[in-house]
Amino acid sequence: MSAEDTRATTDGSAGRADGAPPDGTEGRDGTPRRRRGRPARGEGGGGPGTQERILASARELFAERGYEKTSVRAVARGAEVDQALVHHYFGTKEGLFSAAVALTAAPVTDRIAALDRVAPERAGEEFTRMFFRIWENPVTRAPLLAIVRSALTHETAARIFREFIAGQLLSRLAGTLDAADAQLRAELAAAQLVGTVLLRYALKMPPIATEDAETLIARLAPVVQHHLTGTAPTG
Amino acid sequence: MSAEDTRATTDGSAGRADGAPPDGTEGRDGTPRRRRGRPARGEGGGGPGTQERILASARELFAERGYEKTSVRAVARGAEVDQALVHHYFGTKEGLFSAAVALTAAPVTDRIAALDRVAPERAGEEFTRMFFRIWENPVTRAPLLAIVRSALTHETAARIFREFIAGQLLSRLAGTLDAADAQLRAELAAAQLVGTVLLRYALKMPPIATEDAETLIARLAPVVQHHLTGTAPTG
Repeated sequence: MSAEDTRATTDGSAGRADGAPPDGTEGRDGTPRRRRGRPARGEGGGGPGTQERILASARELFAERGYEKTSVRAVARGAEVDQALVHHYFGTKEGLFSAAVALTAAPVTDRIAALDRVAPERAGEEFTRMFFRIWENPVTRAPLLAIVRSALTHETAARIFREFIAGQLLSRLAGTLDAADAQLRAELAAAQLVGTVLLRYALKMPPIATEDAETLIARLAPVVQHHLTGTAPTG
Repeated sequence: MSAEDTRATTDGSAGRADGAPPDGTEGRDGTPRRRRGRPARGEGGGGPGTQERILASARELFAERGYEKTSVRAVARGAEVDQALVHHYFGTKEGLFSAAVALTAAPVTDRIAALDRVAPERAGEEFTRMFFRIWENPVTRAPLLAIVRSALTHETAARIFREFIAGQLLSRLAGTLDAADAQLRAELAAAQLVGTVLLRYALKMPPIATEDAETLIARLAPVVQHHLTGTAPTG
């Protein structure tokens, strides 16, 4: 389905390529890049942790290069496994991206689940705080921002992102609301927060980029609360 | 000041490179692509309307390929002028992008100026309506979306976009407000609207993507109004 499906052995796309021969000796040449466990393109690279290694490689590459420029081959190389194993575990590049999105969004998913136990009138502040906690932390921010960028610029990535966000995150948030238009409410709240983090971290536009998080939370929480539980306009 | 100032004759902007020789015969080969007047690579392409032609070519290419993949050379070719003329009028690629942003945002800029004459308590609805009018129209949406995408994915494009949006649009909106934190207010309002249009048109996430504009305006106008003129949290 994509050009990357070719079963390559050696390789050479810019950056990254290490030029090691395909006989299992790579990783002994002293390059600092390869450190994840032993083997083993030569052996196919199966075994415990393989799936996790592939996923970690995928997430790193998607974050670094975006959806379009990431190939299944490069992901396999990053994980030191045979490309066939990547296909075995994740299917196509789309499947890989989907898994990477789920992994990256895991902290958000977990926290949203916790919103279930929050009083409805506190949901605005809790959701806003949760959102900022994740985005203020560079470790969680970088891969999220990368995935949002991919989704905003590539149609396939957008579809996968949409399915995940709508199906997992927003549905869960909407599920905590007692309203017929819960999904729209959740999404309008998300729009306010997404717009804010894009201005803050991607476009870096002051004063949103320079205000401290608490000031922004104080401004945004009432608006998020309004979207989630406020009176909707009639008509 | 607008792209329509180009001196078009026949037309058909779809593709671009025509492979015609640089002797002034291009456009006679029957390709439907080139419509912009005579001339001119052979002659350097100067003369009335040159600047507008270059700008129209730049806007089209930035919209189609994004900031990174657009070259000054391609812009010159699209406008049928010598590359030196592009540099003469616009300096670098950054200068071109900056001019293209200003051209693309012109409808917004004009409308924001009109907000000056709106009663403060109507500003939320007027601004929201104005925003949707521009984004609901595919003709104005496409280049805007393209520029936002470039800005979200490329640092230089982000800087230019930021300078323009912060310096022109948001300052103007803030200027209509009577508040010490006017710029923050304007930006938080913009964040809500930007987040919404990205979910609606770029990520295409229902229900925001599928609701009619009036429903969204009814939901968003009070929030925008709140950001612009509402009571700010203390402390």
